[in-house]
Amino acid sequence: RERAMSKVRRLADLATSRPQEETLLRMSIISVVDPGFWTRFGVHFGLFFGALQGQGTPSQLAYWMSKGALTMQGITGCFGMTELGHGSNVAGLETTATFDPETDEFDVHSPTLTSTKWWIGGAAHTATHCTVYAQLIVGGKRYGTKTFVVQLRDTKTFELMPGVNIGDLGKKMGRDQIDNGWIRFTHVRIPRSHMLMKHTKVLRSGKVVEPPLAQLAYGALIQGRVSMVSDSANVAKRALTIATRYASVRRQFGDGTPGAPERKLLDYPIHQHRLLPLMAQTFAMTFAAREMTANYHQLMKQLGAVDGAQGADASDAIKNLKETHATSAGLKAFCTWMCLNIIDQCRQSLGGHGYSAYTGLAQAYADFTVHCTWEGDNTILMLQCGRYLVATALEARNGQPLPDNLAYLKGALAAGAAPRATGDVGALDTLQAAWSSVAANAILSAVRAFEAGLAKGLSKDNAYEFSSAARLHAARMHTYTYLLHRFAAQVAQSPAALRPVLARLAQLFGAHSAVQHSGEFLQSGFYTGEQIEALKAFVNSACAEVRADAVPLTDAFGYTDYVVNSPLGRYDGNVYEKYFELVTSLNPQKPVPYFDSLIRPLLERTNESDDGPELEFDQE
Amino acid sequence: RERAMSKVRRLADLATSRPQEETLLRMSIISVVDPGFWTRFGVHFGLFFGALQGQGTPSQLAYWMSKGALTMQGITGCFGMTELGHGSNVAGLETTATFDPETDEFDVHSPTLTSTKWWIGGAAHTATHCTVYAQLIVGGKRYGTKTFVVQLRDTKTFELMPGVNIGDLGKKMGRDQIDNGWIRFTHVRIPRSHMLMKHTKVLRSGKVVEPPLAQLAYGALIQGRVSMVSDSANVAKRALTIATRYASVRRQFGDGTPGAPERKLLDYPIHQHRLLPLMAQTFAMTFAAREMTANYHQLMKQLGAVDGAQGADASDAIKNLKETHATSAGLKAFCTWMCLNIIDQCRQSLGGHGYSAYTGLAQAYADFTVHCTWEGDNTILMLQCGRYLVATALEARNGQPLPDNLAYLKGALAAGAAPRATGDVGALDTLQAAWSSVAANAILSAVRAFEAGLAKGLSKDNAYEFSSAARLHAARMHTYTYLLHRFAAQVAQSPAALRPVLARLAQLFGAHSAVQHSGEFLQSGFYTGEQIEALKAFVNSACAEVRADAVPLTDAFGYTDYVVNSPLGRYDGNVYEKYFELVTSLNPQKPVPYFDSLIRPLLERTNESDDGPELEFDQE
Repeated sequence: RERAMSKVRRLADLATSRPQEETLLRMSIISVVDPGFWTRFGVHFGLFFGALQGQGTPSQLAYWMSKGALTMQGITGCFGMTELGHGSNVAGLETTATFDPETDEFDVHSPTLTSTKWWIGGAAHTATHCTVYAQLIVGGKRYGTKTFVVQLRDTKTFELMPGVNIGDLGKKMGRDQIDNGWIRFTHVRIPRSHMLMKHTKVLRSGKVVEPPLAQLAYGALIQGRVSMVSDSANVAKRALTIATRYASVRRQFGDGTPGAPERKLLDYPIHQHRLLPLMAQTFAMTFAAREMTANYHQLMKQLGAVDGAQGADASDAIKNLKETHATSAGLKAFCTWMCLNIIDQCRQSLGGHGYSAYTGLAQAYADFTVHCTWEGDNTILMLQCGRYLVATALEARNGQPLPDNLAYLKGALAAGAAPRATGDVGALDTLQAAWSSVAANAILSAVRAFEAGLAKGLSKDNAYEFSSAARLHAARMHTYTYLLHRFAAQVAQSPAALRPVLARLAQLFGAHSAVQHSGEFLQSGFYTGEQIEALKAFVNSACAEVRADAVPLTDAFGYTDYVVNSPLGRYDGNVYEKYFELVTSLNPQKPVPYFDSLIRPLLERTNESDDGPELEFDQE
Repeated sequence: RERAMSKVRRLADLATSRPQEETLLRMSIISVVDPGFWTRFGVHFGLFFGALQGQGTPSQLAYWMSKGALTMQGITGCFGMTELGHGSNVAGLETTATFDPETDEFDVHSPTLTSTKWWIGGAAHTATHCTVYAQLIVGGKRYGTKTFVVQLRDTKTFELMPGVNIGDLGKKMGRDQIDNGWIRFTHVRIPRSHMLMKHTKVLRSGKVVEPPLAQLAYGALIQGRVSMVSDSANVAKRALTIATRYASVRRQFGDGTPGAPERKLLDYPIHQHRLLPLMAQTFAMTFAAREMTANYHQLMKQLGAVDGAQGADASDAIKNLKETHATSAGLKAFCTWMCLNIIDQCRQSLGGHGYSAYTGLAQAYADFTVHCTWEGDNTILMLQCGRYLVATALEARNGQPLPDNLAYLKGALAAGAAPRATGDVGALDTLQAAWSSVAANAILSAVRAFEAGLAKGLSKDNAYEFSSAARLHAARMHTYTYLLHRFAAQVAQSPAALRPVLARLAQLFGAHSAVQHSGEFLQSGFYTGEQIEALKAFVNSACAEVRADAVPLTDAFGYTDYVVNSPLGRYDGNVYEKYFELVTSLNPQKPVPYFDSLIRPLLERTNESDDGPELEFDQE
């Protein structure tokens, strides 16, 4: 933690003096090298400052910047959204902020134990201010969750402010460099203007002004999720660099011909089957991330332009917002799960060595898994995405035009025969058609489940609830399809020299995923049994081909040994020596400290047993 | 580590004074509560002593017991099989043991760096002796991997013996209580009789006597794998206890009716879908473990009786050995993967709280994952199982009788129509038939792939290599089938009161697994598209029913709060208080240690910049 903090300072300087995208570039490397520190820094700049930008009026933003919010002079921030009893649903937070008309202040209070702010990064040791999400209460009426800036510690003495109580959450699975803490507020008073009022405003008189479009506030959430998609890609690259390089050095068994060296692990089909499809997935995520980031930026421009005026283009900014919100939700959940799985598979592919903390993947798993709950639990996010698919499908059914990456629904909505696979089952566009039909299928069966719910007289929300399994399924099939489409699109516009390799990877991604979900394809009748078999054979051959330049592909990731930071994944391949060196230098030989106290007594214990006095009256 | 060691002593006493199955019972609880210590203890009693029993002649066993091998007086053992460069394939170890006829000793040597014994539990700090697996070399000829007892440390001073070099492997992902180490032997001399000669013998003259049946030595390996199947079950029970109890307390969202408490997590179908199928899997593993253990014991009796004499019953002891060896290999790999997945799903189902080290599952994942590489890498073991299935199928095709838990192959081998599902798709015997047909299918396609390899002129081994993906697939489908059969069998002979619940769970296990692999069933034509849909609906309803007594089922696991040891899984359900208490008591509030050294300078840094001397010749 101390180390994480000492780096913050160097970076804060750089961040304030270098142009911003250089900092972001640096950050995305840091998130691979030192995720703990990345979080600490991200909490302040990403979340805390993000919240100020996203929900503070310009003058409020200027005010906090003047107090040092941007350059961390006098302010270190943290992001107070999650509570002990609530995480994903922001609307149901229990912390209250009650407006007091006489003193023109808000009274921030944690009414129950489960309303304790929990998992707040940076709160335990380093934060001085916090953007708190709390229920706005004016005159006894609740206006929903809004954001308030609350000072936690006196910036000179670092003592807790009156009524603020903070504790350390202690040992976590990973990322212990960051000081997560819990916060309780006991009637903490803050001036009215510490409420971020870009949207909802509370006037001196106590009147509350609601903005017309309620959900503009979701903007801030998208930025976090989009950056997680690219993190998933980056972390997956590192995991694969290690596993692939190791697999191309490690030898095992052999074909019995005497004297011949054993075969390299990566030459075994079974091992190719373990790693190379993951590599295809990584490329798919990389391309998806690159595009999501682009969409997000011109969405922000759009939203930025939309604020003051009313009128037409606001609504399609809105639609665009909803669309990005849903896609990013699905993508985040999907990619973090996929990345987590990639890390784990790569770790297991190292065999026993994967268990050592020095080979790099043990900690990576522990650090990354938090992404699956950050910014909302993955399952919840997939359901939101599913919900959006059903809603769009319903709108499409009665004439609304489809957003273009749901264009594949048009075919499915039109009556008529489901499309079938012809010719080469592994061709890229066949695979795209295959996934489109499966995704369309899944969405429509979710629509059916939804209407079945309505038919049983459930309310709209409960009908969604009823069809949650189907929605989850629809969201996953859709995301696969989305990824394959993006992948294919990028392949089309990539330089000629790389096209065949990338095409091959896209096919491998499509085919392998299809084989894994062969049930869906058989069910939608797109592939028949034999074609599935052919597809399996294709996967094997695709793996064998991709294997040819598996190592150069990892070089293309462009991670230096320092970033990979694992002896098994070093560039020059001599793994065992470095590994041996690393282990012995970090564990110098010393005598066994508890030999005298524990082992000697264990080894030399004798269990003699005396058996007491003999008795003198034993005869009757 | 120290703590692990101080417990060893108490347990060693108990182990030597209590009857053995009580120790084993105690051990299986310990493996849930304190896996690190379990390993340390298991290494000595399970592996080291197991090796002495399994491969030492009775007089050798007596000799080592007299030196204290059983009661750990004067001897603490470790198990030297894995090497830096080799783990799973025992035949290819590089460590050599060369017989020296003049001095009547073996010269144990690590010729290369990759021959360093690696991951040796107990070697770094506590072991005095080691059963080393090394290549036997007599007169320059290699006789394969045999076992030798080598003394590592002087038992008085604990100094290393001449030529032995040991180092600590340091930080691991989990189980840091156990001191894994690496060992190098530099021409270490051991008397000839330190070679365990139950099977292969080396005489004073240097003549080597090989036993007739080569692979009797595999006995020792089965015992480890069988106990891992039951560990998978036990650890899975704990994970589910936590997740289920938490899900039946935690509330989320709500159906919007004001004032109504939010719904319990476990009432959401989606959440049932996450947990209850896992519960069915756990019961399946429990029953499989119980039976595997029984088989193993009467196999040992058989083998015990077989040794001296030749003749008929030897061979079917052999067959029985092969059969158990293959099944245990498959089961071990399958169950440890399944258990690992269960832990992870349960952890994620706790949302953010799963990330805390105090909720119990963070460490469980790290501790358990080692099972996937212990006793051989899982993938390797599944392939061995696959290899056995193909061999048996081939023998069956030309008339050999099938062992009875491959009886389902008979139908598939007989020509004629593949069986189809009729009536209730979720009925137990339908599901059994379904899986039998899928498993048979998978095995036959592995046989086909194998023969395709032979047809291409590959040697027998390479043909197996060629069909490894198919073999892997066959082994997995077979294990599912095996589990369902065992499950159904146990349901049939369970007391009446429990039968419907257990039957329901068995159905859930069969159906859910089927839905996950719906492709296989559609492919084998056993289920049609609609029937798969019906099966999905059945899964949902089965979950809803099982949910009714989800909590009592976890109570049936009979783990006390002490064993569960997680505030989220406590018996009386008030989770948040305990959790809050635990966190605050383990992290008392103290002032921030590095405030003065790091945070104050950060907060108060000013970046004034002076800009040097002004220059006096600037005018032209």
